[in-house]
Amino acid sequence: MARPKTPLLTADIIIELHDRYDRPIILIKRRNPPYGWAFPGGFVDIGESVEQAAIREAKEETGLDVVLVSLLGCYSDPARDPRGHTASVVYVARASGSPKAADDAMDISVCTPELPPEPLAFDHAAILADYILYRNAGTLPSPTDNGGSIRSQ
Amino acid sequence: MARPKTPLLTADIIIELHDRYDRPIILIKRRNPPYGWAFPGGFVDIGESVEQAAIREAKEETGLDVVLVSLLGCYSDPARDPRGHTASVVYVARASGSPKAADDAMDISVCTPELPPEPLAFDHAAILADYILYRNAGTLPSPTDNGGSIRSQ
Repeated sequence: MARPKTPLLTADIIIELHDRYDRPIILIKRRNPPYGWAFPGGFVDIGESVEQAAIREAKEETGLDVVLVSLLGCYSDPARDPRGHTASVVYVARASGSPKAADDAMDISVCTPELPPEPLAFDHAAILADYILYRNAGTLPSPTDNGGSIRSQ
Repeated sequence: MARPKTPLLTADIIIELHDRYDRPIILIKRRNPPYGWAFPGGFVDIGESVEQAAIREAKEETGLDVVLVSLLGCYSDPARDPRGHTASVVYVARASGSPKAADDAMDISVCTPELPPEPLAFDHAAILADYILYRNAGTLPSPTDNGGSIRSQ
């Protein structure tokens, strides 16, 4: 089989610090363009599962060992990353302890989900809105919200 | 940015025929290796969302217009496809009418989830087991079932 070309695959992680009051989340300040604040994450390597990539990227960028709790969604709008088409699988995870910015992260914010640092990079403001709904109401985003309502012709 | 290499991205769709008694699902007989029965699906094109790819592949292989209902999971074990590392985003969808095998599908089975044709290709037996649990109990697979319990070192 000739290798097809598909969107690049990334994993992003919304880390809840469950040993702190009000279970704050972590955002990182990106060292590289596109600049702004983002959930920890990065490209999935060939030979690792998406879950393993999520755990590895969380460790590399925050120093924390995370446990994945749930799959929030898969975000794949072709315009979401100005560098080219990427699809991100986004997990909610738990960790405890003190995050330290490392690797692609210049700085770290521990914040309440409703008051993130700004600006958020990529489509992370939309992902954060989905996460807040999931956190407060237990509702996962519907695939029809995100391109799934476009019927094939 | 040099283009990173990541696993190839696919979308698979578990189609429920909601106008029939007991809401059967669709499996297709693959025309190309790896042979066996599988959920309709295929590679995501650059420039389309994963949801759009799912709807397009369902149409191409079964002739049906589907509406995506939920995201079941993302399956990305590096060994799941003998041709190379692929990650599949799997949706549950609804459709009505009569499916017709086309494109990569040689034949179609409309079956109860507990009695699929055999053998199932890829990791679709594991995906089907996750789907049956979701269908009967409303429980989505946990990311810890699928590589997420492996902590970063």
